[in-house]
Amino acid sequence: MAKNTVGVIGGGQLARMMIPPAIELGVDIRVLEEAEGMSAEIAATGVGDYRDLDTVLAFAETVDVVTFDHEHVPPAILRELVARGIEVHPGPDALLYAQDKLHMRAKLTELGLPVPDWASIESADELGAFLADHGGRAVVKTARGGYDGKGVRVVTDASGADDWFLALAEDGRGGALLVEELVSFRRELAQLVARRPSGEMAAWPVVETIQRDGVCAEVIAPAPGTAGRVADLAAGIARSVAEGLGVTGVLAVELFETTDGRLLVNELAMRPHNSGHWSIEGAVTSQFEQHLRAVLDLPLGAPDARDDWSVMVNILGGPAEGTLQDRYPAALAAHPEAKVHGYGKEPRPGRKVGHVTVTGDDLEDVVYIARSAAAFFAD
Amino acid sequence: MAKNTVGVIGGGQLARMMIPPAIELGVDIRVLEEAEGMSAEIAATGVGDYRDLDTVLAFAETVDVVTFDHEHVPPAILRELVARGIEVHPGPDALLYAQDKLHMRAKLTELGLPVPDWASIESADELGAFLADHGGRAVVKTARGGYDGKGVRVVTDASGADDWFLALAEDGRGGALLVEELVSFRRELAQLVARRPSGEMAAWPVVETIQRDGVCAEVIAPAPGTAGRVADLAAGIARSVAEGLGVTGVLAVELFETTDGRLLVNELAMRPHNSGHWSIEGAVTSQFEQHLRAVLDLPLGAPDARDDWSVMVNILGGPAEGTLQDRYPAALAAHPEAKVHGYGKEPRPGRKVGHVTVTGDDLEDVVYIARSAAAFFAD
Repeated sequence: MAKNTVGVIGGGQLARMMIPPAIELGVDIRVLEEAEGMSAEIAATGVGDYRDLDTVLAFAETVDVVTFDHEHVPPAILRELVARGIEVHPGPDALLYAQDKLHMRAKLTELGLPVPDWASIESADELGAFLADHGGRAVVKTARGGYDGKGVRVVTDASGADDWFLALAEDGRGGALLVEELVSFRRELAQLVARRPSGEMAAWPVVETIQRDGVCAEVIAPAPGTAGRVADLAAGIARSVAEGLGVTGVLAVELFETTDGRLLVNELAMRPHNSGHWSIEGAVTSQFEQHLRAVLDLPLGAPDARDDWSVMVNILGGPAEGTLQDRYPAALAAHPEAKVHGYGKEPRPGRKVGHVTVTGDDLEDVVYIARSAAAFFAD
Repeated sequence: MAKNTVGVIGGGQLARMMIPPAIELGVDIRVLEEAEGMSAEIAATGVGDYRDLDTVLAFAETVDVVTFDHEHVPPAILRELVARGIEVHPGPDALLYAQDKLHMRAKLTELGLPVPDWASIESADELGAFLADHGGRAVVKTARGGYDGKGVRVVTDASGADDWFLALAEDGRGGALLVEELVSFRRELAQLVARRPSGEMAAWPVVETIQRDGVCAEVIAPAPGTAGRVADLAAGIARSVAEGLGVTGVLAVELFETTDGRLLVNELAMRPHNSGHWSIEGAVTSQFEQHLRAVLDLPLGAPDARDDWSVMVNILGGPAEGTLQDRYPAALAAHPEAKVHGYGKEPRPGRKVGHVTVTGDDLEDVVYIARSAAAFFAD
C-alpha cells in the first residue's frame, strides 16, 4: 500500500490550506494542533504541545510522514522521531537551517550563494566593529525565534543590541547574534521551490513581495520584469539552497533585489509560505498540493502560472467588530472574480486572518481588484 | 453575525468536494454521513439515517443552512425542517421536482420548456398506446429512485415494463411510470446554473457529457461549437428551470441536442453534479464554491471558464487490486499538469472513485492528457 497519510504539526493557516488539496488528491491529512479551535481544526486528530516528545510521538505514530505548519518543533524531538524510523520532511538537519539564522548564513556562505555581508557577534564591541566596517548601520537578528519582523532590528550604535545580549546571557545557553549589512534593495522577491526526498525539484515563477511593518502585505506573481535573467537567477539560487541544505517539501527563499541588480538571500522558510498563497488559484499546482506531493515523495506537479498575473493581498487584522464573514456580502458582490480566503481566526490587529487572490491578464486591473476586495475586510 | 455554517446531508463525494471551498472561503461545513468512513468523513459531525426525522433534526439544529449530497431525503422530513424554521436549500417544493420525474415533466411542460414527448402511464395498455404513437420505441422511467442509468429502460413492447408496474402495485402506494419518446440526439449537453434565495443566478458555460452504460464518463467544457446560439439557448433553459421551479443552490440540467438542432431537457439534479467537476480547476468559481455561496445567500462568484478547454474524465471502478494511491506515482509522473482527484472510496467495479481534470488551449491535447492520466487507474 502506498504511503498516504500526512501528519502536520501545528494547526495554523498553513496547515489549514494543506487540507483542500489533500481532500482533492485523496491524501489522508491529520493535524496536531496546539489548542482546540485553531485554523486547521477540521483535520485535527490531536491537541497538544509540539515541544513535548510524548505528544509528538503519539501523533507521529498515526501517520506515514510528518511535516509542519511552522518551524518551531525542537530539533531534539525531530531527531528522536527520525531515530525511531519515522519519516520527517523537511528533516531535522535541513530544518535547523531555518531554525537558526547563524547556521543558515554559515551554510549558504560555504555553498557560495549570494548573501549580505554578515557576522556572528557576541558583544557590543563586535557589533561596533561591524558597524564601523559598514557605514555605521546594520541589521541585527536573533538567531532563533524571529518571524514577521520580530527579532529583527536596525542598529546604528554599538549598544543597540545590549538587551538581546543580556537576554542571551541570562538564558544560560550563551549564544551569538547575527549582524548583517543593511542592504540597499530595489525590491524584495521570493522564490519558492519544492523538492522530493528522491531529488526531483520544481520551481514556481519568482514573485515580488511587498512588506509593511515587516509583514508580507501583497504578492505579485510573477515579479514584474523578471522574465529571463532574474527569473533564472532566482530559481537557480533556490534550487541550490534546496539541494545544498537537503530540503524536502516546499522551500521559500526570500531575496533582496539590490539597487545594483544582484539577488541576495534574505530569509528561508521550509514550508508553504505567504509568498506562495497566490499559487492556490494562480498555478497549475499550488504550493500546498506540491508540499503534500513532495513530502509523500510523489512526482511533483507542474508549477506553471495559469494566468499572466496573480496578485495576493493579505487581510491583516480584519474587522474591528464582528467577523470576517459579516463583510462577505459586500465584498463578494463588488468583486465576483476575487477569491476570498478566510482562515477561521478571530480578528485581531495585525493578525493574518485571510487573503484575497485575483488573477488575470492586466496587472493594473488585477492589483486594483485584489486591493479593493481586501479593503472590505479592513476596519 | 452572518450565517456561516452549512450542513450537508449525505457523506458522498459531492459533500466531500464542497469541503475544500468551504475551508478556503472560511465557511464552517458539517456533514451528516450515512455511515462512518464515507467520502466526506473529515467534515462529518453526525452519522445516521437521513430517513429518520430525529437524526436529521438533531443535525439540522447545529447549522445555519441545510443542503444535500443527494436528493433522497424524504419530502416529509424536509417539510418538517422548514416548519420548524430551519433553512433548507434547495427547499422541499423545488426538490420534489428532482425527486419525482413525473412531477418534473408536468411542471416543465406547464412552463413551456422543451421536453421530449412524454406521458404518465399506469398500465401496459397505456404503454402500448404510447409506443404505437412513437414508432414502436420509447424510454420508460420510474418516477422515483433512479440515477446513473438505473430506473431507465428502452422498451419496444407494451409488456416491457410489467415488472415495474407489478412492483408499484405491490408497493401499495399505486403510482405511475414515466414514458418518453426515444430522442434522436446528436450529443448530450449539461447546463449548470446557481441560484440564490434572493434570486441572483449565474450560469457556467454549457458542457458536453459523454456517457458510457448510462454513467457519465467524460465532460468537455465548453461543449465544442456551442458559442452563440446553443450556449444562449442552454443557459436560458436552465435559468427558466431554476426560476420556474424555485431552485436554490446549484441546478444541473441535462439536455439532449437533437439531430435537428433542438435542445430538450432530459434530467434535472439540484446539487453539484458530475458534469460540473471540471469547474474546480476550469472556472473562476467552481460549482462547489458556488453552491455554498448560493445556499448561504451570498453574492455569486464569476462562473467564467479560466481556460479555452477543460476536460474531466471519471475514474470508474479504479484498480482491481490495491488502492487508487498505488497508481499515483506512475500517473503523476506521466502527467504533471493533470489534476487527479480521489474520493477516498474503495475501488469497486463501476463505482465513481475519482476523476481527472486537465485544462488548456488545445482540445486534442487536453482530451489526450486527461484520458491518459485517468487510464492509469483502470484495471
